[in-house]
Amino acid sequence: MLRTEKGKIVTFLPSGRVVAADGRNILQLAQDTNVPIPNACNGAGTCGKCLVVLKGPATPPTDAELRFLTREQIDAGLRLACQVWPAGDVAVSVPESGPARILAEGAQVRFRRNPHIRKVHISIPKPSLDDQASDVARVLDALGPRVDRTALEPKLLRTISEVIRSAPQSASDPSKSSATAVLAGNRLAAVEPGDTTDSLYGIAFDVGTTTVVGYLVNLNTGERLSVVSDLNPQVAYGADVIARITHTMEDPRGLRRLQGVIIAKLNAFIGMLCEQAGISRSAVYDVVIVGNTTMHHIVLGLEVRNIALAPYIPVVTQPLSLRAAEIGLRANPQARVHLLPNVAGYVGADIVADLLVGRIDRRSGTTLMIDFGTNGEIVLGNRDRILACATAAGPCFEGGNISCGMRATSGAISSVSLRDGDLALETIDGAPPVGVCGTGLIDAVAQMLRLGILEETGRILDPEDVPGLPPAIRRRVRSTERGNKFVLCEAGQMGAECEIALTQRDIRELQKAKGAVYAGIKILCSHMGIAPEEIDRVLLAGAFGNYIRRESALAVGLIPQLPLERIRSIGNAAGVGAQMALLSTFERQRAERLARKVEYIELSSSKEFPTEYAEAMFFPTKAYA
Amino acid sequence: MLRTEKGKIVTFLPSGRVVAADGRNILQLAQDTNVPIPNACNGAGTCGKCLVVLKGPATPPTDAELRFLTREQIDAGLRLACQVWPAGDVAVSVPESGPARILAEGAQVRFRRNPHIRKVHISIPKPSLDDQASDVARVLDALGPRVDRTALEPKLLRTISEVIRSAPQSASDPSKSSATAVLAGNRLAAVEPGDTTDSLYGIAFDVGTTTVVGYLVNLNTGERLSVVSDLNPQVAYGADVIARITHTMEDPRGLRRLQGVIIAKLNAFIGMLCEQAGISRSAVYDVVIVGNTTMHHIVLGLEVRNIALAPYIPVVTQPLSLRAAEIGLRANPQARVHLLPNVAGYVGADIVADLLVGRIDRRSGTTLMIDFGTNGEIVLGNRDRILACATAAGPCFEGGNISCGMRATSGAISSVSLRDGDLALETIDGAPPVGVCGTGLIDAVAQMLRLGILEETGRILDPEDVPGLPPAIRRRVRSTERGNKFVLCEAGQMGAECEIALTQRDIRELQKAKGAVYAGIKILCSHMGIAPEEIDRVLLAGAFGNYIRRESALAVGLIPQLPLERIRSIGNAAGVGAQMALLSTFERQRAERLARKVEYIELSSSKEFPTEYAEAMFFPTKAYA
Repeated sequence: MLRTEKGKIVTFLPSGRVVAADGRNILQLAQDTNVPIPNACNGAGTCGKCLVVLKGPATPPTDAELRFLTREQIDAGLRLACQVWPAGDVAVSVPESGPARILAEGAQVRFRRNPHIRKVHISIPKPSLDDQASDVARVLDALGPRVDRTALEPKLLRTISEVIRSAPQSASDPSKSSATAVLAGNRLAAVEPGDTTDSLYGIAFDVGTTTVVGYLVNLNTGERLSVVSDLNPQVAYGADVIARITHTMEDPRGLRRLQGVIIAKLNAFIGMLCEQAGISRSAVYDVVIVGNTTMHHIVLGLEVRNIALAPYIPVVTQPLSLRAAEIGLRANPQARVHLLPNVAGYVGADIVADLLVGRIDRRSGTTLMIDFGTNGEIVLGNRDRILACATAAGPCFEGGNISCGMRATSGAISSVSLRDGDLALETIDGAPPVGVCGTGLIDAVAQMLRLGILEETGRILDPEDVPGLPPAIRRRVRSTERGNKFVLCEAGQMGAECEIALTQRDIRELQKAKGAVYAGIKILCSHMGIAPEEIDRVLLAGAFGNYIRRESALAVGLIPQLPLERIRSIGNAAGVGAQMALLSTFERQRAERLARKVEYIELSSSKEFPTEYAEAMFFPTKAYA
Repeated sequence: MLRTEKGKIVTFLPSGRVVAADGRNILQLAQDTNVPIPNACNGAGTCGKCLVVLKGPATPPTDAELRFLTREQIDAGLRLACQVWPAGDVAVSVPESGPARILAEGAQVRFRRNPHIRKVHISIPKPSLDDQASDVARVLDALGPRVDRTALEPKLLRTISEVIRSAPQSASDPSKSSATAVLAGNRLAAVEPGDTTDSLYGIAFDVGTTTVVGYLVNLNTGERLSVVSDLNPQVAYGADVIARITHTMEDPRGLRRLQGVIIAKLNAFIGMLCEQAGISRSAVYDVVIVGNTTMHHIVLGLEVRNIALAPYIPVVTQPLSLRAAEIGLRANPQARVHLLPNVAGYVGADIVADLLVGRIDRRSGTTLMIDFGTNGEIVLGNRDRILACATAAGPCFEGGNISCGMRATSGAISSVSLRDGDLALETIDGAPPVGVCGTGLIDAVAQMLRLGILEETGRILDPEDVPGLPPAIRRRVRSTERGNKFVLCEAGQMGAECEIALTQRDIRELQKAKGAVYAGIKILCSHMGIAPEEIDRVLLAGAFGNYIRRESALAVGLIPQLPLERIRSIGNAAGVGAQMALLSTFERQRAERLARKVEYIELSSSKEFPTEYAEAMFFPTKAYA
């Protein structure tokens, strides 16, 4: 099976990283060299996402490449990384896609601020032959009886003597030294010379399958000082959690590798956040991390295989509090990290953070909350009961599995409306269109339904079967070997380099995804004993949920047919919830109670699911206005 | 100051360790190469203890060497390591002194056994789509409500999934797996497949300045399975705590080095103890360490300089519980280590362990407890109050600072009595005499006092001034330039290679040591408001305290003049107390209460001390029978 000559050198650009080719294809070489190449099928040759520009001799294009790439593209050096082996020294670069549009703002919620980490300014009596108390006792005595005297860490003990001896004299009492104690709950975490109570910061991380967002917060004031976001570097190892877990099962070093790249990313974020705010990394004393259960486990280095295999068991759902250094995070050496609880293998700490924001347990009536990320998690609850389930709705709302799909980055068609008898498109950044993202897809399909060229079964009709279709629209429907396709943008139009169209297969992908979500909603309603129409409000969380047009979501039947005013976006609630947990011990405790309260409904073992799913694949008979 | 040619090679025998000479003397080279060479002055050239046999060209003998070594010894290759530099390739060996006689047996005490570490056999329901609880929840649920659900360590989380999936099926219920939970207090520390409750062991360490003892204990039965003891390898860096602390102050890597050699020794002990008992290292789940405050701090890697500098402040006195791996101990990966509390800079966890055994807080009347180690710690207490102080009694009771002194190893004169008008000597192992250890010294001085050749001032009288002296004794008193000396053993007698004698200076050393101890006793009595004669009992702890003849101790005035029956040895109480803490959480709690109860009296700031000390230097006027 050796497809290449050995001993050839592969250089990855722009980093300049060099690796010797030895039978591995370009994707494998990139992964082993920590060069992120987006891909959705982890090398199976079925997603067509691992595009690279390759310069130099290489193996000829495979059938898979010929399916996804034009002859011109291949001639220009575009290849699929998983399908090409070097045949000599080559240089490889990943086409720029620009920074992703990520929701880093969230809804505003009121909550009580009492951070887990506090600073207390203390005056420590200087030792003398008449007062020979130990250094630790001297500090604890100054803090009073409410501080734990037994939980003392070696790292603190190894530095406390030097710290308190370097402390300046107290301004009010020359027999004492001025110092600041850092308390984690009721435990002494660190001591610093002088009064440093003003400098107390924390970072909240929302680690998504596709994107990572970090927020730097002043723990004294609650003010958010900086925000950074970027792709999760694990995307180089697969687009969804199943591909990531598969990577850990296929390679004994896979789990450590995935943990390594995400921790490195979080550390880079800590650096960027601090630099933007002009503070030192060592002023960060607390970190809160939320993410789906798989991301949560990988951050901690925990085994994830049993999340992928039935009956889908996570290692741990309890909230966890550790020293940040224990998982390799570089902040203050004594900084803590808190991970909100998970609910189940596919309802993670990010959904618990959503619940802190959504507060569905405190609202009258019944609330439906949907978090559209790379997976789709659904929660239905009221003051008495909270139900949750997860659907593999996944990638299509982020542009995955769609022929011209892309993430919500520059050039993605994000909005499709009807104007003057034809489509009107909007792209992110107003750039020339290069593909369609999730919100554009839902908009486009909603318009197709309104125009009548899409049957409720999902079939793209021939234009002649649709009376009264405007001529411009009529021209957009083309027949192909595999059913009709609907052209959103011709090559050349708006500066597009190639045609962007939805195929019959793309429509099927959306039907499956929205069918899964809607079936989940139906089953939760059935467990709750209500009809979907009885839902009092719908909260949409996550970036897709924030940008989606509610009308289109209703039109395609992604959510129950409810009055528009009952539907509301709560933005990137997971990130907001993580910041709440950073700023409030009460919210941490609430998160723990909420996670315990949620009843997880396993759809794969639900007898109703196959029927509900099949039924929900249809589009609503009457498109909502 | 370059005293040697560079580039010469020094080989240490028998290890064969090789180091390039580069201006360092042999002692420095040995220390930097981890070759232990006993010494008491850490290279000052004043103790004469760092004897080595050197083969090959070297710098000529210094004045210091000529003071301590005969010409014959030097010709035979004997040198002081701190006084000699290689002048070419040389081989260096340390003269054998044989294993030390160390007290590894202690008094028997009754206490309630409830080890901190417990094992519980559990049946864990296998997961299913109807029961998707996390692996951790599954284990915690099987343990019931009394186990802490929040304190979970990453190491446990990283292994628990594999462990419970490899667990055998429960014999009584095929829907469950059989496993064993290891609990540390009410926290889950580890999970093991199957029923391993029978295998649960702990190790107690008594880390003395000079000697280290380890005890392997079956935590299920309380049975002691094996004992090992050896010199503390830190003796290569100085004989007493001050020399060790000085080493950490002179060399920035000194503290790490001292910690490294003691942890390596404890790990070697763990291996030896387990091998002797035929168990696996991974079956050791708990470790208790006691030692003086300096040893305690060095084991943890804590700064010790402030113990040496007034006002003598330790970093911490509270009891500490850590994971054994945190200080580099190699036992079960989840093993714990507990360090009993200290009282002050010079009254450490070993004395607290003594108190667990001595139980002076539970006895009627007032008890005096003295622990003679490399330091001498004194405790005086009753049901209401416990006072403690420390004296630099130190090395002379272990043979230090005595011209022919040695540790209690093979060939040491350990007992001196009068028989047939002359001395009768006993040596350890009955070997030819090579020196005198602490008990032999006290015995010899007691006999000199009885014979009348030693004045109460400590002067060795001329034989002609002592009427009625037996002729054999008379011949033992020799005049020297620096006063008389008293020959215990002639060269050739009993196979001795050279003469063994007590010099006037040796007597002064003992006077200082016993004076310090007795002054400490007097001052504690004064604080307690009693006269020394009112003490109801005296407990002698430590090896010296165990082997010393009470009559001789009384004769030289080391302890108050009390009836013999009030004086009792409690053996190596520190080691026994450490085992009690290993086997009993109650005793750990008692240790904490005791440590808090002890009032530490700082002798160096006591106004009475100089007077009491000067007075106590005299020998009792009338030697006790």
